[in-house]
Amino acid sequence: MNKNDKENKACVILSGGMDSTTLLYDVIEHHGKEKVWAVCFDYGQRHKKEIECALESCVVLGVPLKVLDINVLNEVAPSALTRKDIEVPEGHYEDENMKQTVVPNRNMVLISLAASYAISVGAKNLYYGAHSGDHAIYPDCRKEFVVALGEAIKLCDWSEVKLEAPYVDMDKGDIACRGKELGVDYKLTWTCYKGLDKACGKCSSCIERLEAFDSNDIQDPIEYERQI
Amino acid sequence: MNKNDKENKACVILSGGMDSTTLLYDVIEHHGKEKVWAVCFDYGQRHKKEIECALESCVVLGVPLKVLDINVLNEVAPSALTRKDIEVPEGHYEDENMKQTVVPNRNMVLISLAASYAISVGAKNLYYGAHSGDHAIYPDCRKEFVVALGEAIKLCDWSEVKLEAPYVDMDKGDIACRGKELGVDYKLTWTCYKGLDKACGKCSSCIERLEAFDSNDIQDPIEYERQI
Repeated sequence: MNKNDKENKACVILSGGMDSTTLLYDVIEHHGKEKVWAVCFDYGQRHKKEIECALESCVVLGVPLKVLDINVLNEVAPSALTRKDIEVPEGHYEDENMKQTVVPNRNMVLISLAASYAISVGAKNLYYGAHSGDHAIYPDCRKEFVVALGEAIKLCDWSEVKLEAPYVDMDKGDIACRGKELGVDYKLTWTCYKGLDKACGKCSSCIERLEAFDSNDIQDPIEYERQI
Repeated sequence: MNKNDKENKACVILSGGMDSTTLLYDVIEHHGKEKVWAVCFDYGQRHKKEIECALESCVVLGVPLKVLDINVLNEVAPSALTRKDIEVPEGHYEDENMKQTVVPNRNMVLISLAASYAISVGAKNLYYGAHSGDHAIYPDCRKEFVVALGEAIKLCDWSEVKLEAPYVDMDKGDIACRGKELGVDYKLTWTCYKGLDKACGKCSSCIERLEAFDSNDIQDPIEYERQI
C-alpha cells in the first residue's frame, strides 16, 4: 500500500474468511473507514456463514457492505463448492482431488463485478486478498494473473481503478501474523467449506487456518466439530 | 483467425446485434458449426429483441446458445440501458450524452463469464465482436483493453483460453461488408436501443447501423418506425 493512496476511496473484496477480513482491517487502517466500501458475493455457497461473518465484521467496523448475487456462476460451471450433489473433498489443498472445488475463472468474474462497483462508488483502489498458499491449486490466484488482470482493469474505464493484492507474496501464516498486529476479531471469520454449525476441522480450509494460527501462537476463537 | 484454430472448439459472445451475429457466421465458417457454442446475456436490457434474435440465429445456424442472467449488473451500477427511469439519449455515439449508456466495466463482466463458460465446454478460442466504432465512447471496447484482458484470460485457468476480437480494427461498415460475403441474415439481428416493436431509426445505434448498410448498398431487411 502506498502513501498516496490514503486520499483515495477504496473498495475491498470481502469473503468473510480470515484473509479478506484481515485485508479489510488493513485497508481501513490505511485509508480510514470513511473511505472504505466492502463487497461480497453470494454464489449459493454451502458456507453461507462466510457472508454472515462478512456482514458482522462490517457492522462492527462501520463500513458499508454490498452483497452481490452471482448464482449465475452455477449455470456456467457447477463445482463442489456450489452443488449439493458433489461431495466436498477432505485433505490438503495440494491434493489432486481439491481441483473439484474450482469454478473456472471465478475470480475474474468476482473481481470484474467488484471493479464495476468500485467505479460506481468512485473508489480508486480495489483490494483483493489473493495469497501465495492458493497458487498451486487456483491458477487465478497467481501473482501473474493478478498483475495481468490489474492491467485490464486500469483500461476498462476512464477512471483507472488500481487492483491491489498486497498479500499475494504472503502465506496464510503471514496473514494471521498481520491480523494479530491489527487486532482482527477472528471470531467473525469463517473458513470451513462445509455448511455445518461449527467448523469441521477436517477439510483443507480448516487445516490451513489452524496451521496459520498455530504458527503464530493464536488461539482460534471459533468452535470446531472435532477437538483441536 | 488462424489456420490452427480450426481444430479447436470455439465460444462466441452473441448479443443478437449485427456485429456479433456477423462474427458468429464468421466463426462457424472457420471452425465448423459442430465446434461452436454461443453465449448471450440477459441484463434486463429494454431491447429484449436482441436476445430473441440471438436465439433465432442460433436455431437457424444449428448452434447451441446459453443465455446467462446478469441482472446483478443493475445492482452494481444503474445506467440508461437498464433503468426505465433514465431516458435513452438520441443522437450520435460521439456525443457527450451517450456516456449515460455506459455500465462501468460491463464488458469485463460479460467476457469473464463467457470465459468460464468457454472453459467448461472445452473451447480454446473465445470470440468477442468489439469494433473500432465503439472505442470513442466505451473504454472497454479499445484494442488495448482487449489485449490486456486476453492476457489475463490466458492465465485464469490451466487450459489457456485465447480471447479473439477479429473485428477490433474494423468499423461497422467493414463488418456489414463481411456480413454480405458471409450471407448473414440481418433480419434476425436487432440494433435499436429502444424496446419498441419496430426499430426507432433515430437512436445512435439505429443511425450507425443504417450508415453501415448504406455504405455497402445493403437494404436493411428490418422494419423501422420512421420512413428510412
